[in-house]
Amino acid sequence: MKSVIGIDIGGTITKIGIVSKKADILKKTSFRTKDYKDFSSYIDKIHSSIVNINNNIEILGIGIGAPNASKNGTIETPANLNWSGNLNLVKTLKKKINLPVFLSNDANCAAIGEMMYGKAKNLKDFIVITLGTGLGSGIVSNGKLIEGYDGFAAELGHFSINNSEGRLTGLGVKSGLEAYVSATGIKRTIMYMLSKYMNDSIFRGIAFNDLHGEDITKAAENNDFIAIKAYEYTGKILGKSLANFVTFSQPEAIILTGGLAHSGKWILNPTIKSFNKNLLPFYQNKVKILLSGLEDKDSAILGSAALVWKNI
Amino acid sequence: MKSVIGIDIGGTITKIGIVSKKADILKKTSFRTKDYKDFSSYIDKIHSSIVNINNNIEILGIGIGAPNASKNGTIETPANLNWSGNLNLVKTLKKKINLPVFLSNDANCAAIGEMMYGKAKNLKDFIVITLGTGLGSGIVSNGKLIEGYDGFAAELGHFSINNSEGRLTGLGVKSGLEAYVSATGIKRTIMYMLSKYMNDSIFRGIAFNDLHGEDITKAAENNDFIAIKAYEYTGKILGKSLANFVTFSQPEAIILTGGLAHSGKWILNPTIKSFNKNLLPFYQNKVKILLSGLEDKDSAILGSAALVWKNI
Repeated sequence: MKSVIGIDIGGTITKIGIVSKKADILKKTSFRTKDYKDFSSYIDKIHSSIVNINNNIEILGIGIGAPNASKNGTIETPANLNWSGNLNLVKTLKKKINLPVFLSNDANCAAIGEMMYGKAKNLKDFIVITLGTGLGSGIVSNGKLIEGYDGFAAELGHFSINNSEGRLTGLGVKSGLEAYVSATGIKRTIMYMLSKYMNDSIFRGIAFNDLHGEDITKAAENNDFIAIKAYEYTGKILGKSLANFVTFSQPEAIILTGGLAHSGKWILNPTIKSFNKNLLPFYQNKVKILLSGLEDKDSAILGSAALVWKNI
Repeated sequence: MKSVIGIDIGGTITKIGIVSKKADILKKTSFRTKDYKDFSSYIDKIHSSIVNINNNIEILGIGIGAPNASKNGTIETPANLNWSGNLNLVKTLKKKINLPVFLSNDANCAAIGEMMYGKAKNLKDFIVITLGTGLGSGIVSNGKLIEGYDGFAAELGHFSINNSEGRLTGLGVKSGLEAYVSATGIKRTIMYMLSKYMNDSIFRGIAFNDLHGEDITKAAENNDFIAIKAYEYTGKILGKSLANFVTFSQPEAIILTGGLAHSGKWILNPTIKSFNKNLLPFYQNKVKILLSGLEDKDSAILGSAALVWKNI
């Protein structure tokens, strides 16, 4: 059976899967992106991972979703990856593996994945927000991805929200949205809440580097004051920002996916509350906020694979 | 010669023109929108204005640009017009004049006008910002207008900028962009600067209601401290907001038009300075801020007329 390879390059984890036309993931593997200090050893690892999982499946092409992907097959100035400058990903990988390689922004891949298999199946106007190491976004208007002049549209993680705290993002953007709303952002908010309040919390005994998203959800379920405050704060900012984004492309739905979205109602409820409060009268009851229905861990692979099916 | 009618419904002035296929304006007229307290007498005035200027030109259709125009021929909850509720503009006008009538957002018409005749002739990704009574916007991505689910995309005047002053827009949006950046916004900023500073200024002797945009430009040219501060403040906010908007659709150019844009360098220079300061590294030198090259007073008529040529 002819298949394709989907690769999702995340700030923390790189995921690789062999995907059939029917969106079955036949094989998959993953490794830590941050373990590879230079880009060429990282490409070697992608290559060896593909060789390891593929026993005689005919592969038609490789689709890759990555942060800061340009229209020219490069990754430019990635904020959440170890490597700097312009990385010639498509060309370098093609030298190792003689197959067609397609690259797009990781959140654009997520949007294509939602459109092919997920909650956006029948929608023409929607936004996908990926809440991983950073905040990514894919915007579809009238059934087409908004790509921009050279592929750098939909970088809403770097949208400046003018928050009084003034947190800096990895790119140095003051009050950039992803500094607040992302898997990393909510960890920063836990620290902020520990600074602001003196209430007891499990997080008084956990260092920033040892803190994981699942811990925050668990703590909230155990009624931890700091965890609940952190979700409320994050949802308030996300909801207001999404209400603002509606003035741009008026989507029918905004779909949340990625690590932070795994907390379910904890992020969803305060986000919807703040969204409805800030939405303009003429948008009321026209825009849904949804959690991705796809199994998150694989939707990024499916989206990247869909790039190949769309292009070959 | 077969021609069309273009109508621009502005918060202050309604402009009507008979336009040839080659974009020559054969006849034109205008009247004050605010003089008509009820919507049906306003429609009567549009009708009589058309009858007055048309002596035997064959008209193929009517194109109308208006704030808060929906995809269904209505104007919904207009913030800058006298009338409230859902106004069935297309249906009401068709009862008076038996011609095809096309309605779109006024700023969308301006964007179509720029694409057909103006600075956006060869561009596929651009934003037009109209700085009139309010702030309107038309966003083109990959050669197509972003219309949104039911035609209410690109309402960037209501985008909340989280400014510490917290001005309210006509719709009650806190820190909505048009409360700062529009012909009305800069008048409010003159008042703000009069509150903030005690410097001499011509504006100490002019009441808000007697203040016009041209007065502010003239005062700035005469080195009036308050006028110069007002342009700097307005440009700073506009430039930062435009830099934020680039993260959404990555346009190749942003074109400013309407009353406030008539001040030329006074608004353009501080806007460009603030824009470049706030633009992300990977957008630097890729996005131009331009003033509309069209004679502003007629570009709205041309854009509305273009709606007809596009659709018949």
